[in-house]
Amino acid sequence: MTTSAIADALRLPPGPVDLTSIETDAAPGFDGKKADGQAALHAMGDELADLQERLWAQRTVGTDRRVLLVLQGMDTSGKGGVLRHTIGLVDPQGVRITSFKAPTEEERAHDFLWRIEKGLPPAGYIGVFDRSHYEDVLIGKVRALADDDEIERRYGAINDFEARLSGEGFTIVKCMLHISPQEQKSRLEERLANPEKYWKYNPGDLDERALWPAYREAYETVLERTSTQVAPWHVIPSDKKWYRNLAIAQLLLDTLRGLDLQWPEADFEVETEKKRLAEESPVQ
Amino acid sequence: MTTSAIADALRLPPGPVDLTSIETDAAPGFDGKKADGQAALHAMGDELADLQERLWAQRTVGTDRRVLLVLQGMDTSGKGGVLRHTIGLVDPQGVRITSFKAPTEEERAHDFLWRIEKGLPPAGYIGVFDRSHYEDVLIGKVRALADDDEIERRYGAINDFEARLSGEGFTIVKCMLHISPQEQKSRLEERLANPEKYWKYNPGDLDERALWPAYREAYETVLERTSTQVAPWHVIPSDKKWYRNLAIAQLLLDTLRGLDLQWPEADFEVETEKKRLAEESPVQ
Repeated sequence: MTTSAIADALRLPPGPVDLTSIETDAAPGFDGKKADGQAALHAMGDELADLQERLWAQRTVGTDRRVLLVLQGMDTSGKGGVLRHTIGLVDPQGVRITSFKAPTEEERAHDFLWRIEKGLPPAGYIGVFDRSHYEDVLIGKVRALADDDEIERRYGAINDFEARLSGEGFTIVKCMLHISPQEQKSRLEERLANPEKYWKYNPGDLDERALWPAYREAYETVLERTSTQVAPWHVIPSDKKWYRNLAIAQLLLDTLRGLDLQWPEADFEVETEKKRLAEESPVQ
Repeated sequence: MTTSAIADALRLPPGPVDLTSIETDAAPGFDGKKADGQAALHAMGDELADLQERLWAQRTVGTDRRVLLVLQGMDTSGKGGVLRHTIGLVDPQGVRITSFKAPTEEERAHDFLWRIEKGLPPAGYIGVFDRSHYEDVLIGKVRALADDDEIERRYGAINDFEARLSGEGFTIVKCMLHISPQEQKSRLEERLANPEKYWKYNPGDLDERALWPAYREAYETVLERTSTQVAPWHVIPSDKKWYRNLAIAQLLLDTLRGLDLQWPEADFEVETEKKRLAEESPVQ
């Protein structure tokens, strides 16, 4: 599968991960500036929509193919913006977005993957996870919501889970939206400065923010332990919103191109049906 | 609530309905041609997106408001096109599309409204039904899938159900996509002429088409019996795809405008939070 310069630049190499060494305001694999990036994103729209329709059409012939895009990142890193600007480029009919909040009592009574299974996209869909099972080894670890042995167990359980999905027709694309703490601060300031954005702000955001180094460390472990051949992680520099949107659109486009999606063959006799239609009794 | 010329033209007056007297290729309430209609649709995008975000934001303050758009129509009438071109104008995050196919065995073991309840949008969402509970008094009646008494009972059950939803924060907009049998024929011919559209064709479509007069009668009864103050029907002339998309966008826009959606007030002390953020320990 040929991939784009952006995908090549973003795929995480094996080995230890040091997030402080990955720039948050760069635009790896892309030469242009903001206006160029926005134009490049716009230019992908038709092909993305075409390939998504082919994937959708495959449902009629019993495909098991589907795409799962996992979005993770600190508050304000732009998961919502990706949904609006990148996922918004394709037919909403074929998209299944699942947002994972703090688990409910019922969800907590099950294994952490129970609610994840329920949120998986059906065949033919592009599924998007806005947060995911990775919260259970991120906030789960930082806030000690589970003990060390359980956290440790989860890395393996996640890899097994994703390997199983891969065997069931899923193509998994995992993206960590990487912003700097300075960028987060300025985005939080914006929310507090604009009454139209108050609803996006929660005082608890600052408590999480104070734990930034612990989250960074937890992310590094996640990236090291769960970036696999079948479900690789991509670290997306996300201080530049336009690059974030472009990069994820490019990853999605590469993924769909890699599926070599054809229009389904007719499972009926085309000539027979043409004849039936031509010769029908008048319908009024 | 002020409504647009399009909405005024499309709202079904009380009384008997004769679908043969409603033109399928007209553009009621709109003066322009195709290019004007497409421009008018495009021009609604920003306001639609803004109002939808306000509705979405209301979730954070415990709103029960939500919109339910019901799309009904014969095969090829363009339900999928509305999803792509009209619903595609707003943030996919705040949209919940539910498509109703032939009921499963489990669904058939329950009352016809059981699966409908499960497909309702949560508060803050725009829900779209691609087919709906109306199938149970359309194909249900035409194909005699239920006996006459049961069909008769369902009209009342639907009105009670929708009245209850209206009291729970739903605004219901029901649209019947009205095409002529000649237009359907030409759309089916297109599907059979283009290998990229074979997947949209099903030989059973012609069997349903042969029952056109019975479906028309069933639709007329639905429109007469279930167009209510809280959940009115609109008959959308749909031979012109551009008008169909424009008209439904306009109905959605009118609906959202009518909700008088404000940005939620802060439920925290803005100045306190600004101070916390300004005075925090350095985060690196």
